Amino acid sequence: MSQQSPSPRTEVRRKPQRAHHDPATIRAIIDQALVCQIAFNQGGSVHCLPTACWRDGDFLYIHGANNSRLTQTLLEDECAVSITHLDGLVLARSAFHHSMNYRSVVIYGRFEAEDDPDAKAAAFKAFVEHASPGRSAQVRPPSRAELAGTRLLRIALDEAVAKIRNWGVEDSVEDMAIPVWAGVLPLSLRAGPVQPEAGCAEREPPTLPTFIGFFTRCNG
Amino acid sequence: MSQQSPSPRTEVRRKPQRAHHDPATIRAIIDQALVCQIAFNQGGSVHCLPTACWRDGDFLYIHGANNSRLTQTLLEDECAVSITHLDGLVLARSAFHHSMNYRSVVIYGRFEAEDDPDAKAAAFKAFVEHASPGRSAQVRPPSRAELAGTRLLRIALDEAVAKIRNWGVEDSVEDMAIPVWAGVLPLSLRAGPVQPEAGCAEREPPTLPTFIGFFTRCNG
Repeated sequence: MSQQSPSPRTEVRRKPQRAHHDPATIRAIIDQALVCQIAFNQGGSVHCLPTACWRDGDFLYIHGANNSRLTQTLLEDECAVSITHLDGLVLARSAFHHSMNYRSVVIYGRFEAEDDPDAKAAAFKAFVEHASPGRSAQVRPPSRAELAGTRLLRIALDEAVAKIRNWGVEDSVEDMAIPVWAGVLPLSLRAGPVQPEAGCAEREPPTLPTFIGFFTRCNG
Repeated sequence: MSQQSPSPRTEVRRKPQRAHHDPATIRAIIDQALVCQIAFNQGGSVHCLPTACWRDGDFLYIHGANNSRLTQTLLEDECAVSITHLDGLVLARSAFHHSMNYRSVVIYGRFEAEDDPDAKAAAFKAFVEHASPGRSAQVRPPSRAELAGTRLLRIALDEAVAKIRNWGVEDSVEDMAIPVWAGVLPLSLRAGPVQPEAGCAEREPPTLPTFIGFFTRCNG
């Protein structure tokens, strides 16, 4: 994935100052995602479904059961994959200038299947590590039957674009005297308090990915 | 929006035990969303874009600039709208049985424009109230020019389906002795610490919607 020029599909016409095409920015947004949304056509209709995701190299990975309609459909046609992090409410003095801070990525292309058992085992290990670093060494790895029954798909990040809004309020000058609180209310995904299975409470709790903070100790 | 039978598009074939078609469940999931993802076709390609959303009655609302390609395209063809709340990581003793808890909704249909200025003013007021209850009375309401320059779209919730996973680990019996922490790690969208504009720090801070908790006082 090298530095790209926008394609007709990844050129941002609406608020182009928010667009980013550099791979590092796109990867960083993907790397904080646990779920993506996939838009695809099937049966004469457009669909949009969420699924878990992770990145390895220049590909975004998803998985599904071997007999799933979704994964079969995705192999047959192009799709669009969207990832969005909602980072804050931008609360202005006028209703009109309210906004949201966010980081989003859209990927265009077609998924391909990765059927090699070793590659699948490595990818699913990376998936577990993405959700809880260090965990893959502690859990039972997939059996051959489990690997065989699960389809691994990946899509190249070759045609992708990021959009970011990460700044403050943009009120008009004539609204600045309105005596209301204005500013940004940051939002983030937080974890906790943990809900251990019976017999697990005394064990070392799971490690979180760096992009998710705990809030256990305060208002859990 | 009355009790519905699934349509061919909202019948869930994959893990149907997670599917819900009752309007109360669908509405409750939508009411905790600030952002949705919209899948649509344009220029021979499928697209997936995030945008802000809110519900009023039996409709999901979005908005955009009058000259936006997105809103124009949505008026011309059917789309699918997806909302997903990631509620937790389900950490099993085997890699294979890891899962996620979530609540999602997919809506099928076509957006329609609401052009009546009074209806638009009421809808944008509801939007501000959705993001910060009580705020619409404190900020400057939209001017006639701002209302005229903004397109309001709504889509009926007539053809919609929810999927929910909200339970614990489902390990196989033969894996129960593996000495790893297993359980659910709840995830939620949290707010804080607030970032007031200059001169706003002493004012009453914004009210949050009930579905977002603050974490300001601990690890902000």
